[in-house]
Amino acid sequence: AAFIAGHLVEKGFSVGWITTIGDDADAISDALASAIERAQIIIMTGGLGPTHDDITMKTVARYFSSPIRFDPSVFADVKRCLERRGRGVSGVNRDQAMVPEDAEILRNEIGTAPGLHFRRGDRHLFILPGVPAEMERMFVNHVLPGLEPPGGSTYTKSLILRTVNIPESSLFERISGCTEKFPDVRLAFLPQPSGVNMRLTVTDDSEMRCEKRLQEAEREIRQKAGDVIYGSGMERLEEVVARLLLERKLTIAVAESCTGGLISHKLTNIPGSSAYFDRGIVTYSNISKETHLGVPARILRDHGAVSAETAIAMAEGVRSVSGTNIGLSTTGIAGPAGGTKQKPVGTVFIGYADPQNTEHRCFRFFRDRLWNKERFALAALDLVRRRLEP
Amino acid sequence: AAFIAGHLVEKGFSVGWITTIGDDADAISDALASAIERAQIIIMTGGLGPTHDDITMKTVARYFSSPIRFDPSVFADVKRCLERRGRGVSGVNRDQAMVPEDAEILRNEIGTAPGLHFRRGDRHLFILPGVPAEMERMFVNHVLPGLEPPGGSTYTKSLILRTVNIPESSLFERISGCTEKFPDVRLAFLPQPSGVNMRLTVTDDSEMRCEKRLQEAEREIRQKAGDVIYGSGMERLEEVVARLLLERKLTIAVAESCTGGLISHKLTNIPGSSAYFDRGIVTYSNISKETHLGVPARILRDHGAVSAETAIAMAEGVRSVSGTNIGLSTTGIAGPAGGTKQKPVGTVFIGYADPQNTEHRCFRFFRDRLWNKERFALAALDLVRRRLEP
Repeated sequence: AAFIAGHLVEKGFSVGWITTIGDDADAISDALASAIERAQIIIMTGGLGPTHDDITMKTVARYFSSPIRFDPSVFADVKRCLERRGRGVSGVNRDQAMVPEDAEILRNEIGTAPGLHFRRGDRHLFILPGVPAEMERMFVNHVLPGLEPPGGSTYTKSLILRTVNIPESSLFERISGCTEKFPDVRLAFLPQPSGVNMRLTVTDDSEMRCEKRLQEAEREIRQKAGDVIYGSGMERLEEVVARLLLERKLTIAVAESCTGGLISHKLTNIPGSSAYFDRGIVTYSNISKETHLGVPARILRDHGAVSAETAIAMAEGVRSVSGTNIGLSTTGIAGPAGGTKQKPVGTVFIGYADPQNTEHRCFRFFRDRLWNKERFALAALDLVRRRLEP
Repeated sequence: AAFIAGHLVEKGFSVGWITTIGDDADAISDALASAIERAQIIIMTGGLGPTHDDITMKTVARYFSSPIRFDPSVFADVKRCLERRGRGVSGVNRDQAMVPEDAEILRNEIGTAPGLHFRRGDRHLFILPGVPAEMERMFVNHVLPGLEPPGGSTYTKSLILRTVNIPESSLFERISGCTEKFPDVRLAFLPQPSGVNMRLTVTDDSEMRCEKRLQEAEREIRQKAGDVIYGSGMERLEEVVARLLLERKLTIAVAESCTGGLISHKLTNIPGSSAYFDRGIVTYSNISKETHLGVPARILRDHGAVSAETAIAMAEGVRSVSGTNIGLSTTGIAGPAGGTKQKPVGTVFIGYADPQNTEHRCFRFFRDRLWNKERFALAALDLVRRRLEP
């Protein structure tokens, strides 16, 4: 839903309702009836698969009184897909080629369930598979291009600014005054695991004025919010870091303790990451910090594994063993156990080393283990961003 | 929504509709009106924060014609929370203590926004903060205990069986016959990034018969599905692996290439993971495979980094350098680039080494980079599960 809504909003649509229901014919019909009353464009996902509880297509066909027939070209697609996966065709797969006569077929290039497009007057209903990768591809290739941005007389434009490492209420106070100065720009705060996003939206009967007001508001907000804004749109922090590393032809190696591989995972989520990411060492035990990173036993003994000194030794160690430009490290206490009075759960030390500088930061976060790991990883990546940004 | 629905279903409630709307007063009122018609219990989340677009409480108070007043005990909670985070109290935080007179207050133990509980006849409306950790804690501590399981005359029980590494249609075929043999057991297939889950649900006027039929159906399905079922309920694969390692007092070290740290991340998501997880080495470059794992340059040259030989050398290497009982490795091509005719995108080799055995497996998956990484990591963890299971 977030994927679809994000693309629609970007194209100028307003997304009113998102409804989730079970594989129940009455609920599907009710939801469809309400949606047709409320909206011009309706996008349904899921329930197109081959199993007995996949009833979306049948239910919608009945709703529109559309007969169902076997479609040989759909069947050819299903067969091709299964062959590519090295699997045979079975009875249930043949059923997937039974489609409503009144619907246009949307081809599924990577799965077996075809999508459907019904028209009724000015209403459009698209039905897409529930498997995220199939849905996303079909939506981008076969649904989005055909959608006319709404309006004619009015335009809606929006943009998203992404922040990291600042609580919602502090961000709100920092940019106070903006809502008064730009009463025509709607400002929404969207807290995400990745940080708080701000969405700015303008509706106006001039497309140019929309753009202009958005730009003016963006400039003002960027000035007031300062460097907590790391990016815009759908861009994740690790993508910004990756871009900066690529632009400056720099390489990085990571030594992780409390983040347990999450920083390496994030950096390697980006296609082509081998151009800048050399290695990540998840040194959970003390002995592995000595073996792979050369952290002196003395530092671990005198200052503890969770300390500024260890963070620095880890960052310098991973940089030195890998020969990269940058070394990055984390050591801390993700929880729920392991905290002390001096170093409570949620404490993290981040180390950074490059040819010119070595530095460290200490942060404290306040939630559960998974949340803390996420925040630790983002704080570490943000430190790299701040060092590399011009 | 998945968290709340999961708990409700487990307690015997049927979850009918999940609706997502924007911070818009009309949409909130409309959604509330439809929900009150449809359901006895309504749970709303989000829009309780301190910023101008947080209008849920005001809108619902207006809907119920409930006056709003300052509540000193809520304000004391807000102050306590901010102090714990080392931050001062500002005007927007004081506004968070303005609450509807007619609502019971649900205390927020880890954040500033209090929850609310309205009653109207037999209808219950709970409003919880949108921050997942705060919502989850408040739901479990202050909402769930007070909810009476529905029925009286009928009971609904359900359970979830979790599978990995099998497509939905193959799973469906494997357990064919079960739906005919147990017509009173509703069976839903729920494909997740973690694999396909099956939900079995029985409604009956005898609680004992519910349980009995569920157990019988579970036994039959487990027998037919075989070892692709790795767990039940909310249990993730990495939790099963962690439990098996702990039970057998074994330690593990991981050498990752194409999974980029994801296996280490998953294993360290579990509290207390240092008892069995020693280290993870993300060897993205060839040279790091030699340095940290002792993979012979000859193997990399003759067979390539993506090969059974390299996977085995990585698993043996990480086990040997770390002195753990088990070594686990992945090397493959997550995509989108880097595939060849012999080793297309989506190919992964998994290596496993313990004191008795060394083995490898090759899999191929068919989606995008993130999906492939997830599947690679799950296939590797599943190999460990199969080795350790009695």
